[in-house]
Amino acid sequence: MSPLLPALSSQPPHLKILDQTKLPNKVIYQKIFSYRTLISAIRRLKIRGAPLLGVAVAYGVALEAVKTKKGLREKLSRVIRELSTSRPTAFNLFFALQRMDKIIQSVPNEEELRIAIIREAEKMEWEEREKCERIGSHGARLLPDKARVLTICNTGILATPGIGTALGVIYKAKEKGKELKVFVCETRPLLQGARLTTWELKRMGIETYLITDGMMAKVMPEIDLVLVGADRIARNFDFANKIGTLTLAICARYYQKPFYCAAPTSTIDNSLRNGKEIIIEEREKEEVLTCQGKMIAPKGIKVLNPSFDIIPHTLLTGLITENGIIRLKEKGKLLVRR
Amino acid sequence: MSPLLPALSSQPPHLKILDQTKLPNKVIYQKIFSYRTLISAIRRLKIRGAPLLGVAVAYGVALEAVKTKKGLREKLSRVIRELSTSRPTAFNLFFALQRMDKIIQSVPNEEELRIAIIREAEKMEWEEREKCERIGSHGARLLPDKARVLTICNTGILATPGIGTALGVIYKAKEKGKELKVFVCETRPLLQGARLTTWELKRMGIETYLITDGMMAKVMPEIDLVLVGADRIARNFDFANKIGTLTLAICARYYQKPFYCAAPTSTIDNSLRNGKEIIIEEREKEEVLTCQGKMIAPKGIKVLNPSFDIIPHTLLTGLITENGIIRLKEKGKLLVRR
Repeated sequence: MSPLLPALSSQPPHLKILDQTKLPNKVIYQKIFSYRTLISAIRRLKIRGAPLLGVAVAYGVALEAVKTKKGLREKLSRVIRELSTSRPTAFNLFFALQRMDKIIQSVPNEEELRIAIIREAEKMEWEEREKCERIGSHGARLLPDKARVLTICNTGILATPGIGTALGVIYKAKEKGKELKVFVCETRPLLQGARLTTWELKRMGIETYLITDGMMAKVMPEIDLVLVGADRIARNFDFANKIGTLTLAICARYYQKPFYCAAPTSTIDNSLRNGKEIIIEEREKEEVLTCQGKMIAPKGIKVLNPSFDIIPHTLLTGLITENGIIRLKEKGKLLVRR
Repeated sequence: MSPLLPALSSQPPHLKILDQTKLPNKVIYQKIFSYRTLISAIRRLKIRGAPLLGVAVAYGVALEAVKTKKGLREKLSRVIRELSTSRPTAFNLFFALQRMDKIIQSVPNEEELRIAIIREAEKMEWEEREKCERIGSHGARLLPDKARVLTICNTGILATPGIGTALGVIYKAKEKGKELKVFVCETRPLLQGARLTTWELKRMGIETYLITDGMMAKVMPEIDLVLVGADRIARNFDFANKIGTLTLAICARYYQKPFYCAAPTSTIDNSLRNGKEIIIEEREKEEVLTCQGKMIAPKGIKVLNPSFDIIPHTLLTGLITENGIIRLKEKGKLLVRR
């Protein structure tokens, strides 16, 4: 369990998820009894965050393993195929489904398979939670004793099965007694920064300042470092993250501020040479045309709504993983160590 | 009269303003019978846009000139003092009040003063409308025949007594038969881009794409040039404009895209050496904590809400004024011609 509220918990024969679309106004849990309901919850962003999505789909497969009496292998293969269509960008989701698929391929006995699938999902949850702890500890060393951090979207307890990635770093730094001020980009269109991150940080007792996304450059001179998460990382360390992250990275570069990405290695897609190969989800235009359900623009206006930016590795100071920090720029020279 | 809907018209003994806080959902005009109501309308952004504010306060003074029977000079001086406290950043407002004050100082006869004040306000409206036309014509030459333009906030018919500044350039380019695609940053917190600019552009028959402010970097590679307005320009061409404009300027620089500011010379404050001397209005936190009246973040969160950015002249490609285009960077060399 996370130190706050768990965003997801497995309580067979159902999953319990915190409906993140209702935050911060209402704390509502939803019970999920089938993978189809889970797909819908993922598409509607009731549950989100790349590392959390990985564990969620693993439990979605486990849920069906518990319920299915016969034809288990075929059923689970179909469930995996369908879950993989829920959202296209977060790699952790595919990483988790690949692991589940491997179990299906390697355990011949149906009863053993059922148990192995459930165990694998539980193992993944535990592992991802542990990775968050380690990312947090590695990253916390980067923060000065009085640190002013800028972040975007939500990368904390609501985005992972543990303390988070970028926010996990902040929580670990606080644990170590560092004095923190965190500036949060509201993260339009869906306001994960305003709705989720400020809510988390406030509950964790961290001094928090909400800004609009346009204020990035304005606050940057006051910032010690920028911390963001990732949804998919290519082999060359180009990475996808919430729309707005590229703008943030460019502002950080202009003011020569360190720009770090924090993510478990389960976010790294080794099949991709670079960021150009990452598929970006384009979501419906209503998300931009509205704000919390209210229309903000005339009807019939065209809209762009890519969910993610691709940030070139040249803008990245370093990648904080559970295995340590990979520094991409050292003394002005590009040093990719992998 | 503007080719669209006039944002302001003088109909003694009142002013008629289009209440811009209600757009795009409702087109509501408000009659203003006193300068105090005008101050409140300016503070609440019912009427806004630096060039329009200049003409609005001039008419505010004229309104009182019409109504005041005795002690005219003293009354008008007080009205000017109070109008100058309505908003601190837009220079056009102070420029206009300075002009009105000069009339007060130079016309000794009360009855002549009354008429001179009214004439000066009308002259300013006419002049500012004419300046928009000339800014538009000068600027339109910068656009290729098929132009993709990125802009922020509202700098059009709703922000000036004429066709606008940055949007005026777009309207003139369309008049000349150029094919345009305009990308509009929504401009949080008050969404002038989403609510006002897309509304104007749609009515003017221009292909318009609304984006969130975080998408600036994402769309920049597709853009031919960036056009913005200004609220106050210092002697060295550093300038204040809507929050988000600095982020936009930095993204334009990163992708080596031309970044132009369009403004009448009435926006230039020659008393200021550079942008550091420009006073930035900090508005109430509720604007950031809400979106169209709906809370988007937990209560009690700290918020930053500076209304404007200061953009250093080093990020400016050129300034489009009614007198022509001042190019700041020519062949990589800084060439300030003034």
